[in-house]
Amino acid sequence: MLEIRPVVHILGWIACATAGVLCLPAVADLAAGNPEWHAFFTTTIAAACVGATLVLATQSERGHEKFNVRQAFLVTTLGWVTVCLLASLPFLFTGSSFTDSVFETMSAITTTGSTVLTNLETLPPGILLWRAMLQWVGGVGIIAIAILILPLLRVGGMQLFKIESSDTSEEKLYTAALTIGNVFVIYSLLTLACAALYFVCGMNEFDALTHAMTTISTGGYSTHDASFAYFDSQSLQWVATVFMISGAVPFMLYIKAVRGNFDALVTDQQVRGFIIFLATSSVLMAIWLINQRDISFFEALTLTSFNITSIVTTTGFASDDYTAWGPGAVGVFLVLMFVGGCSGSTAGAIKIYRLQIVIEIVRAHIKRLFSPNRILTLRHNGRPLPKDVPFSVLAFLTVFIATIAAFTVLLSLMGLDIVTAYSASVTAITNVGPGIGSVVGPSGNFATLPDGAKWVLTLAMLAGRLEVLALLVTLDPDFWRD
Amino acid sequence: MLEIRPVVHILGWIACATAGVLCLPAVADLAAGNPEWHAFFTTTIAAACVGATLVLATQSERGHEKFNVRQAFLVTTLGWVTVCLLASLPFLFTGSSFTDSVFETMSAITTTGSTVLTNLETLPPGILLWRAMLQWVGGVGIIAIAILILPLLRVGGMQLFKIESSDTSEEKLYTAALTIGNVFVIYSLLTLACAALYFVCGMNEFDALTHAMTTISTGGYSTHDASFAYFDSQSLQWVATVFMISGAVPFMLYIKAVRGNFDALVTDQQVRGFIIFLATSSVLMAIWLINQRDISFFEALTLTSFNITSIVTTTGFASDDYTAWGPGAVGVFLVLMFVGGCSGSTAGAIKIYRLQIVIEIVRAHIKRLFSPNRILTLRHNGRPLPKDVPFSVLAFLTVFIATIAAFTVLLSLMGLDIVTAYSASVTAITNVGPGIGSVVGPSGNFATLPDGAKWVLTLAMLAGRLEVLALLVTLDPDFWRD
Repeated sequence: MLEIRPVVHILGWIACATAGVLCLPAVADLAAGNPEWHAFFTTTIAAACVGATLVLATQSERGHEKFNVRQAFLVTTLGWVTVCLLASLPFLFTGSSFTDSVFETMSAITTTGSTVLTNLETLPPGILLWRAMLQWVGGVGIIAIAILILPLLRVGGMQLFKIESSDTSEEKLYTAALTIGNVFVIYSLLTLACAALYFVCGMNEFDALTHAMTTISTGGYSTHDASFAYFDSQSLQWVATVFMISGAVPFMLYIKAVRGNFDALVTDQQVRGFIIFLATSSVLMAIWLINQRDISFFEALTLTSFNITSIVTTTGFASDDYTAWGPGAVGVFLVLMFVGGCSGSTAGAIKIYRLQIVIEIVRAHIKRLFSPNRILTLRHNGRPLPKDVPFSVLAFLTVFIATIAAFTVLLSLMGLDIVTAYSASVTAITNVGPGIGSVVGPSGNFATLPDGAKWVLTLAMLAGRLEVLALLVTLDPDFWRD
Repeated sequence: MLEIRPVVHILGWIACATAGVLCLPAVADLAAGNPEWHAFFTTTIAAACVGATLVLATQSERGHEKFNVRQAFLVTTLGWVTVCLLASLPFLFTGSSFTDSVFETMSAITTTGSTVLTNLETLPPGILLWRAMLQWVGGVGIIAIAILILPLLRVGGMQLFKIESSDTSEEKLYTAALTIGNVFVIYSLLTLACAALYFVCGMNEFDALTHAMTTISTGGYSTHDASFAYFDSQSLQWVATVFMISGAVPFMLYIKAVRGNFDALVTDQQVRGFIIFLATSSVLMAIWLINQRDISFFEALTLTSFNITSIVTTTGFASDDYTAWGPGAVGVFLVLMFVGGCSGSTAGAIKIYRLQIVIEIVRAHIKRLFSPNRILTLRHNGRPLPKDVPFSVLAFLTVFIATIAAFTVLLSLMGLDIVTAYSASVTAITNVGPGIGSVVGPSGNFATLPDGAKWVLTLAMLAGRLEVLALLVTLDPDFWRD
């Protein structure tokens, strides 16, 4: 049997950390005299009790814990579940059903951004702040996991991004702590800069802060039902476009840039591909849009840049119902959902480096079909790819697509029409947020879905955030054997 | 530059063979006094002239030709185009537009079965016979290519099915000719058996013959707009189910069975998986169906067995509008389209052996994620997989899915709604026939699609029939260089 004591021990610490985060809205609401402070206060106590119990019950005499690969997978998966269950309590205490509370929380911490809450403007500000905070924390959480853990677990080709560190475990721990510290500072500074610019461009303090949190985390929760269309401001859309991109590039490159290697950020193959892809598709779509509507090219480019960046970075803000731009736009946006941002960022979906590697693989594969004796070296960022990366990337893609198919069938068996079932499945697994159609589309709301479908989508969002494979390993009976 | 003389030489012979096939309806129509005999007669002359010219113009002094890999790819691709262009002339001469003629012919020879012809009952019998003949010839053509050529070209893991033969090229040629001869005899006998049973169960001679041809070839063209629903007969549906399956199992196993190794057919992992899959999904869907409608379990099982087998074997007959069985059924049928029959048969799509190999790959990949040092041997049919097969299969799947995405976007840019665009793209590339929705669904007709969409789908059907990769190689500039 797999030893789960050290796993539970870490989960206890994660619960304690959740309690720490919950303090903030509790204190803020109490200070502002909002009545929902007790919801946060109760949850803080609950989380702290759960956390302390788990930590104490699983205390070891050995000093700091050493994990094997399977325990690391388990912590990664159950960590999200623990946070989700505890962080959903404030929603439950302020009137949402259990299903809705868990759905909304999972959507928040996985930075998906699909919502079941309606009439956002009438909700207590504490709840709106909590949704934004959850996305913000979820965002920095996934960056940490993507930089430190997934490369070691070799999930979906992530071994490509292993940090070189010295051999002693003390130094490894030091490097890891330093990296996470740096990421946290950069992430916070980007959020403050974004909030300041939102404020300058016309948002009030509250909207500026909450939207900055959900922009950098590429989460996409808004405080208004109409999302960014509410503000009707071109300058706000451009600020959002820039900061959604900033949340979707590899945070390791920021660290390198701060340490003086600014070149790394500019010459990185993934970042370049990402920017070129966004620019090209925004311009092409803007040309399509001015043929559909009587607007200027700049207006069109603002709309397309914002909404395309929002989908590709898996944020999910909308400044317009792009599914009303004609059938061609629907087809394009459905494919854009799969793209994703860069590795080691807050973005979900397939991600640019995998697409670049797949293009390399397919080109080489085709050449070898007609010239069997040709020797070809696959490269990424100028360096030859490690031997197991191409296979890992292809296996990831296969599992990713198969998972979407399975969830589509499940949802359609629950009575959802095929467009809703398919696009909801895609948008959940890619952690984008909105799908296609009147229910889950950019101008719809997930509230009217049956409860069963909400649970299926909750699982799909978690699967997507864990690159599917990190969740799938736990379903193999061998995983639990000794 | 790639030498194309021997390629054109073979294309000339293919054109001559097409002329030979065209003789049959010409003579039959003349004998029956049908006025459209001249359409076939003119086409026969045209095909013979084109063929003879190409053959003579590219005659070599070297005796029999030796092909390199690239020339083999080119013959395979252009062979279909040559047959398609020549065989479309009878449609053109009897009133169809050029676009419709080429679409209908490509749909026929690739055994897809999507149709742009309406009011089938009013069409001249010669044309109905021609459609069925084209599917029948296309079916035996793809079996020959899948047994002899694709394994040598290592397309999508087909190297797994290389026939062991001796080393001298004379004996190789002899083995190949013998194999094709055997396949042809078995294919013809199955067709006759099917026609006889159709006749016994109530079809007239003409319907029995044409439907037998389009059943064994898993093509799916009917002589009635309502397809199998026209006959309203349970026994006919069961006959069709059995013979659709017989056309979708590996023909090499029939040859082995005839040579006394009957075991091969029964114990083959692919065939077992195929039958178990069909049986399980038919029974489960029948249970679903009796909950939706007031019919007996046997009635439901007849409907589900027939329609599921029709989709999975990529035939495309319909005995009912299964898209009206509720959203769950739509989701299931959309996924079933991807499955396909066995290798070396007339079926298209992904195919059972690839799905079985993918499941092996993913299981092993997951186990290696949490036990990195584990050594696992992938097997198929009891034997270890050749080293390059898993990668080939994954690369095939990736290209297959990406091609469907690309065609979906293209079709939606032409104004098709997303369900029509997506399902038409899937059904064309998998060579199934019907899609989802009122236009391309089982009770719809492709006639009303814009011409551009018909050309896109014509290309998609060809791509699907050539396992996508055999067409893609010709797009690489290196393919044409020396």
